[in-house]
Amino acid sequence: MKNIITISREFGAGGGTIGKKVAKELGYYYCDKDIILQAAAASGSLTPNEIRRFDEKVPFEFGFGQSLFDFYNKPLNEKLFAAQREAIIRVAEKGNCVIVGRNANVILQEFDRTLHVFVSATQYFRIQNLKTKMPDMSEAEIISHMKSVDKTRKKYCSYYTKTKFGQADYYDMCLKSSTLGIDGCVDLICRTAEKQ
Amino acid sequence: MKNIITISREFGAGGGTIGKKVAKELGYYYCDKDIILQAAAASGSLTPNEIRRFDEKVPFEFGFGQSLFDFYNKPLNEKLFAAQREAIIRVAEKGNCVIVGRNANVILQEFDRTLHVFVSATQYFRIQNLKTKMPDMSEAEIISHMKSVDKTRKKYCSYYTKTKFGQADYYDMCLKSSTLGIDGCVDLICRTAEKQ
Repeated sequence: MKNIITISREFGAGGGTIGKKVAKELGYYYCDKDIILQAAAASGSLTPNEIRRFDEKVPFEFGFGQSLFDFYNKPLNEKLFAAQREAIIRVAEKGNCVIVGRNANVILQEFDRTLHVFVSATQYFRIQNLKTKMPDMSEAEIISHMKSVDKTRKKYCSYYTKTKFGQADYYDMCLKSSTLGIDGCVDLICRTAEKQ
Repeated sequence: MKNIITISREFGAGGGTIGKKVAKELGYYYCDKDIILQAAAASGSLTPNEIRRFDEKVPFEFGFGQSLFDFYNKPLNEKLFAAQREAIIRVAEKGNCVIVGRNANVILQEFDRTLHVFVSATQYFRIQNLKTKMPDMSEAEIISHMKSVDKTRKKYCSYYTKTKFGQADYYDMCLKSSTLGIDGCVDLICRTAEKQ
């Protein structure tokens, strides 16, 4: 039985939905943005709003230079990454959890009983999916936003973990939701977690 | 039902074994090195031995320059790639097949009813697996050979298909045989092929 499931995902591929359904079916704790707030509470140095602003971005992407460095000259977002890392480890230590995003697959690479999943989808599927979630945005705006998030996630992943986002070697299973379906992915993950 | 299954694989990850077992379980035609001979028979310009020499290599890797160019100034191995491509398409057109290697996932990207799988494994698993298949080689020789094959496959893939070997986007499922087991992978592929 794998009782720590991490889900990394392309924006719009349905990784969050899949994670929630897996958690529900297995009776596991579901964890995504919440851990940021936990990290904030733990570090005590950033407000939840400040944290959201830095979430999943790398320093050179911000464009407002020195203001990001605290008095130890350590970028605030590196401090945030460290706080998130600690929060992820605390969640994983309790077991029976599904953790979405935040490179948890790399952070928890030394943990046992983990199942590291990556969810991707075709651009068409992702755009259609995002349209339902962002009804006020035009298709062009959605595509532009999607490309920007893709770029940031890739950079965040390589900057903090020295691994390649979506490269099969770093996950136990990579599933394409546009082929397998959201529920198909949920089923494959649950059956594998139960069986292994 | 998916009736064309392609399996791309890291050297030593057990992709060939998985492919054979999947083909047996589903009653599909299994296809790997054979298609090279088919390609040779079809092109008529290369002997099977000559073909094996060029198999899955890119031109600049050979190191014996002009001798590779035929009188049309087209590299022999590009002619071979084209012949293999044709052979893969002929096999896929008949359906009910498992095709291992040769970038069949990209060659058949416009085909319906395909399931494109990538199989990876940890270095440790791959080395242990290769030891049983190459009992006369030392561990150091196996590691060196493995790294060389990895490098060549990556180059072959990017040179001929402009895609990245093992990047999740280019496959429907990527499975880590060292976590899921050879039979676990077989089971996941067969159940998915039957269900989708």
